[in-house]
Amino acid sequence: MGVNLKQLSEMLGLSQTTVSRALNGYPEVNAETRQRVLKAVQTTGYRPNRAAQRLATGRAGSIGLVMPIAAGIDSDVHFGEFLAGLAEESVKHDFHFVLNPSAPEDEEATFQRLAASGNVDALFLAYMRASDPRISILKSLSIPFLVHGRTLDGPADYPFLDIDNTGAFYDATRLLIQLGHTRMALLNGPDYLAFSQRRKKGMLRALSERGLSLDDRLVNHSFMTDEHGYRSMQRFLVQDNPPTAVLCSSTVLALGAVRAINRAGLQIGKDISLIAHDDVLPMLKPENFTVPLTTTRSSLRAAGTRIAARLISRILKTADYPDQELWRTELIVRASTGPAPRV
Amino acid sequence: MGVNLKQLSEMLGLSQTTVSRALNGYPEVNAETRQRVLKAVQTTGYRPNRAAQRLATGRAGSIGLVMPIAAGIDSDVHFGEFLAGLAEESVKHDFHFVLNPSAPEDEEATFQRLAASGNVDALFLAYMRASDPRISILKSLSIPFLVHGRTLDGPADYPFLDIDNTGAFYDATRLLIQLGHTRMALLNGPDYLAFSQRRKKGMLRALSERGLSLDDRLVNHSFMTDEHGYRSMQRFLVQDNPPTAVLCSSTVLALGAVRAINRAGLQIGKDISLIAHDDVLPMLKPENFTVPLTTTRSSLRAAGTRIAARLISRILKTADYPDQELWRTELIVRASTGPAPRV
Repeated sequence: MGVNLKQLSEMLGLSQTTVSRALNGYPEVNAETRQRVLKAVQTTGYRPNRAAQRLATGRAGSIGLVMPIAAGIDSDVHFGEFLAGLAEESVKHDFHFVLNPSAPEDEEATFQRLAASGNVDALFLAYMRASDPRISILKSLSIPFLVHGRTLDGPADYPFLDIDNTGAFYDATRLLIQLGHTRMALLNGPDYLAFSQRRKKGMLRALSERGLSLDDRLVNHSFMTDEHGYRSMQRFLVQDNPPTAVLCSSTVLALGAVRAINRAGLQIGKDISLIAHDDVLPMLKPENFTVPLTTTRSSLRAAGTRIAARLISRILKTADYPDQELWRTELIVRASTGPAPRV
Repeated sequence: MGVNLKQLSEMLGLSQTTVSRALNGYPEVNAETRQRVLKAVQTTGYRPNRAAQRLATGRAGSIGLVMPIAAGIDSDVHFGEFLAGLAEESVKHDFHFVLNPSAPEDEEATFQRLAASGNVDALFLAYMRASDPRISILKSLSIPFLVHGRTLDGPADYPFLDIDNTGAFYDATRLLIQLGHTRMALLNGPDYLAFSQRRKKGMLRALSERGLSLDDRLVNHSFMTDEHGYRSMQRFLVQDNPPTAVLCSSTVLALGAVRAINRAGLQIGKDISLIAHDDVLPMLKPENFTVPLTTTRSSLRAAGTRIAARLISRILKTADYPDQELWRTELIVRASTGPAPRV
């Protein structure tokens, strides 16, 4: 099995700490030294003892993520965008991720195992549910964690970064009411997720302030794909009393909704108004739709970057960030919203 | 720092090997025992020594990925879909990923560091370039690796899974020629990537067999977003001699191209034919476009699943898979292709 850390260090004329740091990719080791160490690792076949490395540095240099997966679970474009933000910040500090796929029912055990493995310095949690048993698991573990989103039930007594989903859809609904709309539809994300419930809550709040209500037959919860947007919108439009406006929880849902509206021979921004939540996915920009979309906007990539910065600063004890952040979204008006059609 | 592995095992009345295996999530440990071990880990605050775990099991239970990232690099929907496939298979074997973000220029060093860390049992490589220095780095390391895609230059003397990109666009182009098209455009992925170059090659081969050629002004290489599809198609359509058919390397590019075609007042499948490559992204299905798209199809998620199965079987020495696989794509005809318009 070749040399150990001591022998490797002696060969190189470096301290064991320096060699460990070079292998962990810490920025305090210069590029030339790192190259020398990596060459020596290659020629000697040295495989480091993680425990020794951790003794030298006190950390694994990594953030743990649990990725819920099953045969029926679709990939999520929103997750990829968030990961890009997380990675953009992590690479600056030479941090990596341990990504643990897990069946949804095993998630709690997977978090425990991740924390126990010593492979991660911190844990990250997303896809928050209305009430979420994973929070108490994370609290019981001995390493820092950060939540993207928030539970709906119980006190938010844990570190999080969330966007103001209630406010976003409250603002959007209020604008539609000001434009004269009274009958609205909602194309939402899965109903067990907290963000979906908060957006619906915001919509209901604005409606009830004006004595209006939301017809259950005009609400759909689903994964946020083009197809779900299309099918649900089509269903809404064939009803006796179709909506004059629709809120979509994603621009991907809006893509399908727009197609259903066009096929029905209706004009967006005139016959029917549409507002979508925009995560700023580079793949699909709301300003490029044939009728540019009015949106509630918040960058998922920026959230990823911020979460990585907060977790890493917590691990390295380098800077103070607030423990809880609630980001306001922006309501950006484009051509897809207009006055309610006169009947 | 609490107990060590020996003490923890004695507390539980289990062998050290069993405790290690439980912590590593190996299927040979039953669920009840694993729960007991995890509980004991929580109460004692035990943090395992990775080296001891590896001694007991001989493996880390993980696959290493390098994720190229920089401020200007967009997230890639295709990557998320592939990852879902990789995860779907890995979770069955309790394998996880070590995802190492890296600036593109540091990728080679990142691979060396990953291999040297002892944290991964195998490496995975994607986004293959025409000629790719990362291959020789991976060959020089002491752990198994698998390439998604293939280089264009030099012999393919390494384990890979690729789709027949040349054949896909050869078949698509031949169909268009049979329909009477002679002037075609190409909306392709980034030109430094091997798959883009192979698709162009397939197109050129089919054209040259009929004495036809490809006008450079009708070729665009870019990231595969809606916006790039729109802008490039718009540019093609205002030329003196616009194309009567277009090949798109992704359904996301096709989304923008379709919009540009509609805005120009042209009808898809009649005035202009379109064929897109379909990675079977659940978010966006070609059969749901207003004019359903003719596609060359191959599931990215299936590729992810297969790659995980091959790598894990190689690590666990459980099954024999071929070392190199080239998957044919399917050419599926829908309404977006039709006879070339008469002039």
